[in-house]
Amino acid sequence: MWRWQATEYSPESLALTDVKSPIAGPGQILVRVGAVSLNYRDKVALEGGFGTGHALPVVPCSDAAGTVVAVGAGVHRFRIGDRVISHLAPRWLHGSVRLPEDDGLLGIPLEGVLAEQIVLSAEGAVATPRYMDDREACTLPIAALTAWCAWFERCHLQPGQTVVIQGTGGVALFALQFAEMAGACTIVTSSDNQKLERVSALGARHTINYRLEPRWGLAAKALTEGVGVDHVLNVAGGASVMESLSACRAGGSIVIAGLLEDAEFTLPILPFILQQGTIHTLSVGSRDAFEAMNRALEISEIKPVIGREFLFSEAKAAFDLLERGAFGKIVIRMSS
Amino acid sequence: MWRWQATEYSPESLALTDVKSPIAGPGQILVRVGAVSLNYRDKVALEGGFGTGHALPVVPCSDAAGTVVAVGAGVHRFRIGDRVISHLAPRWLHGSVRLPEDDGLLGIPLEGVLAEQIVLSAEGAVATPRYMDDREACTLPIAALTAWCAWFERCHLQPGQTVVIQGTGGVALFALQFAEMAGACTIVTSSDNQKLERVSALGARHTINYRLEPRWGLAAKALTEGVGVDHVLNVAGGASVMESLSACRAGGSIVIAGLLEDAEFTLPILPFILQQGTIHTLSVGSRDAFEAMNRALEISEIKPVIGREFLFSEAKAAFDLLERGAFGKIVIRMSS
Amino acid sequence: MWRWQATEYSPESLALTDVKSPIAGPGQILVRVGAVSLNYRDKVALEGGFGTGHALPVVPCSDAAGTVVAVGAGVHRFRIGDRVISHLAPRWLHGSVRLPEDDGLLGIPLEGVLAEQIVLSAEGAVATPRYMDDREACTLPIAALTAWCAWFERCHLQPGQTVVIQGTGGVALFALQFAEMAGACTIVTSSDNQKLERVSALGARHTINYRLEPRWGLAAKALTEGVGVDHVLNVAGGASVMESLSACRAGGSIVIAGLLEDAEFTLPILPFILQQGTIHTLSVGSRDAFEAMNRALEISEIKPVIGREFLFSEAKAAFDLLERGAFGKIVIRMSS
Amino acid sequence: MWRWQATEYSPESLALTDVKSPIAGPGQILVRVGAVSLNYRDKVALEGGFGTGHALPVVPCSDAAGTVVAVGAGVHRFRIGDRVISHLAPRWLHGSVRLPEDDGLLGIPLEGVLAEQIVLSAEGAVATPRYMDDREACTLPIAALTAWCAWFERCHLQPGQTVVIQGTGGVALFALQFAEMAGACTIVTSSDNQKLERVSALGARHTINYRLEPRWGLAAKALTEGVGVDHVLNVAGGASVMESLSACRAGGSIVIAGLLEDAEFTLPILPFILQQGTIHTLSVGSRDAFEAMNRALEISEIKPVIGREFLFSEAKAAFDLLERGAFGKIVIRMSS
Repeated sequence: MWRWQATEYSPESLALTDVKSPIAGPGQILVRVGAVSLNYRDKVALEGGFGTGHALPVVPCSDAAGTVVAVGAGVHRFRIGDRVISHLAPRWLHGSVRLPEDDGLLGIPLEGVLAEQIVLSAEGAVATPRYMDDREACTLPIAALTAWCAWFERCHLQPGQTVVIQGTGGVALFALQFAEMAGACTIVTSSDNQKLERVSALGARHTINYRLEPRWGLAAKALTEGVGVDHVLNVAGGASVMESLSACRAGGSIVIAGLLEDAEFTLPILPFILQQGTIHTLSVGSRDAFEAMNRALEISEIKPVIGREFLFSEAKAAFDLLERGAFGKIVIRMSS
Repeated sequence: MWRWQATEYSPESLALTDVKSPIAGPGQILVRVGAVSLNYRDKVALEGGFGTGHALPVVPCSDAAGTVVAVGAGVHRFRIGDRVISHLAPRWLHGSVRLPEDDGLLGIPLEGVLAEQIVLSAEGAVATPRYMDDREACTLPIAALTAWCAWFERCHLQPGQTVVIQGTGGVALFALQFAEMAGACTIVTSSDNQKLERVSALGARHTINYRLEPRWGLAAKALTEGVGVDHVLNVAGGASVMESLSACRAGGSIVIAGLLEDAEFTLPILPFILQQGTIHTLSVGSRDAFEAMNRALEISEIKPVIGREFLFSEAKAAFDLLERGAFGKIVIRMSS
Repeated sequence: MWRWQATEYSPESLALTDVKSPIAGPGQILVRVGAVSLNYRDKVALEGGFGTGHALPVVPCSDAAGTVVAVGAGVHRFRIGDRVISHLAPRWLHGSVRLPEDDGLLGIPLEGVLAEQIVLSAEGAVATPRYMDDREACTLPIAALTAWCAWFERCHLQPGQTVVIQGTGGVALFALQFAEMAGACTIVTSSDNQKLERVSALGARHTINYRLEPRWGLAAKALTEGVGVDHVLNVAGGASVMESLSACRAGGSIVIAGLLEDAEFTLPILPFILQQGTIHTLSVGSRDAFEAMNRALEISEIKPVIGREFLFSEAKAAFDLLERGAFGKIVIRMSS
Repeated sequence: MWRWQATEYSPESLALTDVKSPIAGPGQILVRVGAVSLNYRDKVALEGGFGTGHALPVVPCSDAAGTVVAVGAGVHRFRIGDRVISHLAPRWLHGSVRLPEDDGLLGIPLEGVLAEQIVLSAEGAVATPRYMDDREACTLPIAALTAWCAWFERCHLQPGQTVVIQGTGGVALFALQFAEMAGACTIVTSSDNQKLERVSALGARHTINYRLEPRWGLAAKALTEGVGVDHVLNVAGGASVMESLSACRAGGSIVIAGLLEDAEFTLPILPFILQQGTIHTLSVGSRDAFEAMNRALEISEIKPVIGREFLFSEAKAAFDLLERGAFGKIVIRMSS
């Protein structure tokens, strides 16, 4: 079978390689991959950003959807023919926090999923929502689960609350769709009016162009009759964290789930104390959270936003687009 | 001005009476009533079911919507012309539990609202959702707030959870609409197929006719692939509580919010322990909860289900219908 | 090695039998037992109360403490020489609810622990608190963990709250000690003044003899200046559940963790609704909860109350005493 | 009567002045002050740090305990002779967050309490724990309530958890005593070995001298067998926030309740995300939280740590000491 692999830590070394099909050991399933989605961490991993001490070659990517074609000994969760999705952290089954003993992520240090066939831990994979095809389902493991856990494990989002969502990346769009699904009022920020029109079409109640409104936090607060929003999903870091605080009501919360603009942030303490705010962070979620999210998806039948699709042979072009960003997820499908 | 009042504890003594218009004292607002909705407790109160020691005459009803026509000294929450809704427990402003010091309910022992003009505590009234007219808004104080607090203060309902809702009364229909709004999967029970068709039209995912399926709890559990539902809203009491337990998943919860069939219930302890269940009760909610609900309503623009409308002059016919029940709320509107 | 086993479902058939020592398979540990404690369910199991379809012989008991003498393949949690305690539900590792997939309890249907050597799942055993000997440690698995989870997983007990604890059995005494440890005010009920004196010596703030005060719920409420208590641990069932409700403040909660007096309970719905109460049940707790409890024990160094100790050879006498009850746990120690 | 007041925004202008006794208006109580405690904000206020636009003279201080000597119209919470404590934010009665409508703090902008007699809002004062004298009780309003709300409203501290407490100031010592009361394991940091000996005598399990151990966060983590602590109470700000993060377990939380060393803090985002941490802030607590704390105090009979006592006439010396800091609270008592 074919898979993409890099023999050193550079995206250039990525090459389509013919290797022996893997075999499902005890507790494992063999999956014929239907589609894979890309995440920014895939690029960082290829560039050695998570360390260069892992065994080579690197098979990139963590997010795949496909069909079970063989099951190892002792597997009861799945049968041949079941449709499944990979989970970034296959040992993290329970709980809202990933503990050191749940370590081991697909892509790095565990073998990635950009291959025709992959072996997954049966415990660490989940059933595909029935209404989704593999192209849609492969977008869920990182982007959707991060958005889900931000709202429902960290912020305990309730109907009638107002949220600000930064940007229009993969996490942000799922955060928008989930907040709408849960009866919340959504405000999305972007520097691009065309993207803001598209999020409006997806259901965003309000949009703010932060180039035109550098004090977008105050603008968001003004949209709530001066009360302030309940929660902000921050994926940019840096000065935007302070601006997020400006958006919040007394006691509001900020979830930091990315560092797209700046790798750190600084806050003045007195305003933070007077605001009585909370800052949460998170790093994806557990297998149980993934299944809870899928139950919600089955009910709402949300359609993931796919920004661009590539063929398996075009994976390098997909990685190039990842660099520039897309509105929605970048997907590689195995068959045309 | 005219109001309905009973000079003794019997519905027959209810008479339309011309009385002096009330005056808004300090902290109060004078409201020109637009519409009033009926609740079963209005009938119980008129019949003396909450005691016969209260001052006569009894002005019935607690749920009204209208327009502020005068404000007393020290009122900052409202101005003349604002549209407002009464709150059953006007002293219960905060918290998920009504404490003894929050006592005093409209209708009994406080004066009720079935009148052309009423005086309300400004703190204990709430602004009307902008998209609702008075006929719709007057349905909220008891029925909607009970459903809201059952799901969001007691059960912490989350998207993707499954709920069973008993019947098609006022609380039940709001519980259905709120659960749909929050991304939950809904199962409604009734003995009447016509009503079940109507709840399906309102969005119920599944319906069960409990005359045809006396073990409706097991039927509900079967709809969840044998896992059991997350929450049951029980308004009937009696043997239906045990059946509700049968519907639940391990660790599921039952909210008891009514006693339509039986004034008590009995449970065997061992199955209850093995189920690891929780039984909640509640009695409406606080003013703050009412406002949180209204924020959610503004976003979802849910339309309350009005079963039947009467003119102010037809109030006695409205009370007669209350006895027989209706699909949705019974509303009395002040002008034709 | 020797173990107690019953070849049919009757306590009389219990006999000390010489059997081959078990061997630790993959993921298992072999434990030389130091002490075993008895629980009422051990008697019920022996009498066939949990069904008579399980494989014979029945080796009774679930609660043991001892020392690891061998480890199977793949075991990382423990080494030879570690001191460990068994966990009633060895597959229930996480979460506040035991799910169907966590099934399988020591004693019935899994082999029990009343033996010189036992094999346990390494994942489903916990390290012994350093300050405890085996006689003390063997009292924890059911009695202490039930009390712990009642207060900290169900009631979220906080310093300054007031609790009522029914009786002086194993669960009740741990509930008393844990509530004291957590800064709560404790009220204990019993029909025996001598036992009430002993719980006072253990730290109970107030005691009520329910034979002298049949309305002990009201008496408890009076002790809180009429406000009502926050939580009641109910182990008797029957009419005592209604009396527990009388003890509670508005919004208070009852945890039902036993059925010593009556196998069912009946509540009138209207008072329950007006009280806005909650009834929780539970069935022990997870392995993670066990470890959290042990961390708290290490800090507080609570001494479990041992009502009576027997030698391994006297196990039948220990079962006889179980029938009559004891103040504290009944323990069988392996060596004299 | 005499009171201390400043006719301009400088501590030097503070002068003991003879003024007319105040009178309790409707809803108010007149209190003969027994003792007052100082907080750092009293100095900031006197220096104009909270703005210089407030009406002069400034009567400093917010924390007083005394005896009711008169009650205004409509007061039911207190009677003459009752012992009471002031509450910094007398309009903040309920909820874990102070909303804009709860604004108005004693000292600035509301009149302070450093006087022989003061008028308080009856709703915004609380009953003194019976076992405390006024010297002890006056230490509670800011320091104890901040520590209480940090642990029990923000962190939901549970028995068996481990906490790090920064320093030995007023908030820190109450945080130590409350964590001990709640069955937690406590680690206290200071730069002064003598102070660390004193906190050990108060019950601290572990102490760290952060001058000798600049990586005190790692040292704290090592004390938990490498797992990390559950919660850190941070009162210094600046680089110590990053060090606090180093101390925490995965999913641990930091409460920022002061800015003694630095008015801002900076965090790198990636380690924060991988830690999956939470940062809380808070600003004292509600009247209801104060009463909940007092119920806990009544049970545990914790003795507040008084660092130094001054006579009413020596108030200026007390303010001087505030500048230099003390081990425990600085108290001014009215009578010698």
